Amino acid sequence: MTANLISTTATRPAPRSPLDAEELGSNLWRVLDSFLARQSEVLRSVSADLAVLGEALSALLAKGKRLRPAFLYWGWRGAGEPADNSVVRAAAALELFHAAALLHDDVMDGSDTRRGMATAHRRFEAGHRASRLLGDPAAFGRAAAVLLGDLCMAWSDELFTGCGLDPSRLARGRPVFDLMRTQVMGGQYLDLLEQARGEFGVERARSVIRWKSAKYTVEHPLLLGGSLAGAPPRLLDAYSAFEVLLGEAFQLRDDVLGVFGDPRRTGKPAGDDVREGKRTVLVALAHERATPAQRAVLAGALGNPQLTERELHRVREVLAGTGALGAVERSIQRLTERARATLAAAAVPAPAGDMLQELARTATVRST
Amino acid sequence: MTANLISTTATRPAPRSPLDAEELGSNLWRVLDSFLARQSEVLRSVSADLAVLGEALSALLAKGKRLRPAFLYWGWRGAGEPADNSVVRAAAALELFHAAALLHDDVMDGSDTRRGMATAHRRFEAGHRASRLLGDPAAFGRAAAVLLGDLCMAWSDELFTGCGLDPSRLARGRPVFDLMRTQVMGGQYLDLLEQARGEFGVERARSVIRWKSAKYTVEHPLLLGGSLAGAPPRLLDAYSAFEVLLGEAFQLRDDVLGVFGDPRRTGKPAGDDVREGKRTVLVALAHERATPAQRAVLAGALGNPQLTERELHRVREVLAGTGALGAVERSIQRLTERARATLAAAAVPAPAGDMLQELARTATVRST
Repeated sequence: MTANLISTTATRPAPRSPLDAEELGSNLWRVLDSFLARQSEVLRSVSADLAVLGEALSALLAKGKRLRPAFLYWGWRGAGEPADNSVVRAAAALELFHAAALLHDDVMDGSDTRRGMATAHRRFEAGHRASRLLGDPAAFGRAAAVLLGDLCMAWSDELFTGCGLDPSRLARGRPVFDLMRTQVMGGQYLDLLEQARGEFGVERARSVIRWKSAKYTVEHPLLLGGSLAGAPPRLLDAYSAFEVLLGEAFQLRDDVLGVFGDPRRTGKPAGDDVREGKRTVLVALAHERATPAQRAVLAGALGNPQLTERELHRVREVLAGTGALGAVERSIQRLTERARATLAAAAVPAPAGDMLQELARTATVRST
Repeated sequence: MTANLISTTATRPAPRSPLDAEELGSNLWRVLDSFLARQSEVLRSVSADLAVLGEALSALLAKGKRLRPAFLYWGWRGAGEPADNSVVRAAAALELFHAAALLHDDVMDGSDTRRGMATAHRRFEAGHRASRLLGDPAAFGRAAAVLLGDLCMAWSDELFTGCGLDPSRLARGRPVFDLMRTQVMGGQYLDLLEQARGEFGVERARSVIRWKSAKYTVEHPLLLGGSLAGAPPRLLDAYSAFEVLLGEAFQLRDDVLGVFGDPRRTGKPAGDDVREGKRTVLVALAHERATPAQRAVLAGALGNPQLTERELHRVREVLAGTGALGAVERSIQRLTERARATLAAAAVPAPAGDMLQELARTATVRST
């Protein structure tokens, strides 16, 4: 109902979305589709039994928001380079890398749902059960999803390296691509560790955000696009400043959605982050401001896989009642405004400047 | 004691090993060591807590046999190219890729031991316990090892791409590197599936070998070295013929060691392959020839994680008693001889020709 209300009030026709403009959306899909078709042939040459791997990946890729490819693409266009199929292939490589990270993340978190579907490891697990195979179905599902993530990671690299940009351009982008991979995986380990330590510090939560997600979602893709294009240092600096701010806003939005989001929109069950015990800035702020009774609610709920709807409701009350939710919403707004002002000052040429402004909105808006 | 006996009887000075000649061994170690030191800096810039990742990887790499890098290196030298540090870096990338595959493989199989040490996921699990962290120590250990494998996979690619060979050489090697990754992961999925199906067919077991291991250990590394060197098609064909034969012999040897090997030499507990239920050619042949009573022994032991020393002994008796062990030993010998004859006919220039002959011996010999 709320969703309907929001969509009917959007009467002003939206500018062409940065996810679709210049046929980015359909070109990305075409690139991914034909790349996967080629890899499926390779897998089929090993055994017909491997077809299931390509199918599972296609299903996951079909539902992606593709923010990262869009940042890369507009980072390239903002440096004055023309629309080009090679850069779309480089952008598609980021989507494959992201799929690899999600596949492994879901195994590590034991998540059931991703992008509104059963997670890959649960699908393999169900296939094992349906075929009455030997051994533990859950272990089989996890192993298959780890392998699919590995394939996806190798394919991401294959697509990036073979995207068709000339070697000197690729060599400029490589260090950004490499740094992104190392930092995001390091950040994920840090995230694991913070959950296991049960820390509640705001600064620590901010650090996890920064490495695990903010840099990875916005900073590196945009810088990668700019670097591949050979953008001047002045523009790369503006990209960095823009994305450091925006990346944090994006992750704060993600944290809020992880507790308050509508499952039909997030594609994940309500409260999954609470069940997994994620130490987000939102939770850390609430913990800082909470009464002993409110702290007890948080402590009892975080990392509790059997969390009920009623307990989740109480967690939401604590997050809102302590003022943590309001503080995070204000942070998101402030960070996004500063990011957009920074970008505006850099006078990125049309249409990339407007598209990046619009991406900033898309990545942080309340209803996505 | 056995180890002592063997080393004192080796009176004839061995030819310089292909793993050490031309300083390959020490150069490889230097490359890996300095690459890891650089990556550890990147991880440290994220958080000091990440130092443990680099340490776990160093420990694993220190104990590797490094067959794959040696095949790559001598494949390059055999094409007439000089010793070169860039190709050593490309070879080291294969060792990192192999480490990634082992890290994930051990998580999937739930193995406790690798290269004579606790597996990485068990070490992370023990660290979790020792620090009295929250949550399930085993799940933490698995997640950390998956992430370390992901890092290793990305680093392998980073080292390969940045090895210093010029872009035209790299472009010749790329398709081999890419195909290797897709085929080995596809082969691993096939292996999982065959275990879960509980199949005993010799042909199916041979197919798993072929994709999961034979091509990956010998064929692709050697072809990769030859391709990077720009070897003529005639030599690449000879490499292929050599390695198809040798790769199968290598994997058959590995299967025998998985049941009969001395843990002090294999670095894994005796009978781990039986506990995991691996459908090897050795097992498939025994199954084909077994009496009903012998089949019952196999069926009860394969995939039984609680297998006792006594039950393992009975499995060994079945494998030997059915004649399967003897048949596999004869296959190894025949395949290795044919591989060596094929290589001899190709007249690969010195010293690479001798080194590849010696590698063929090392990879398939009974006592390693």
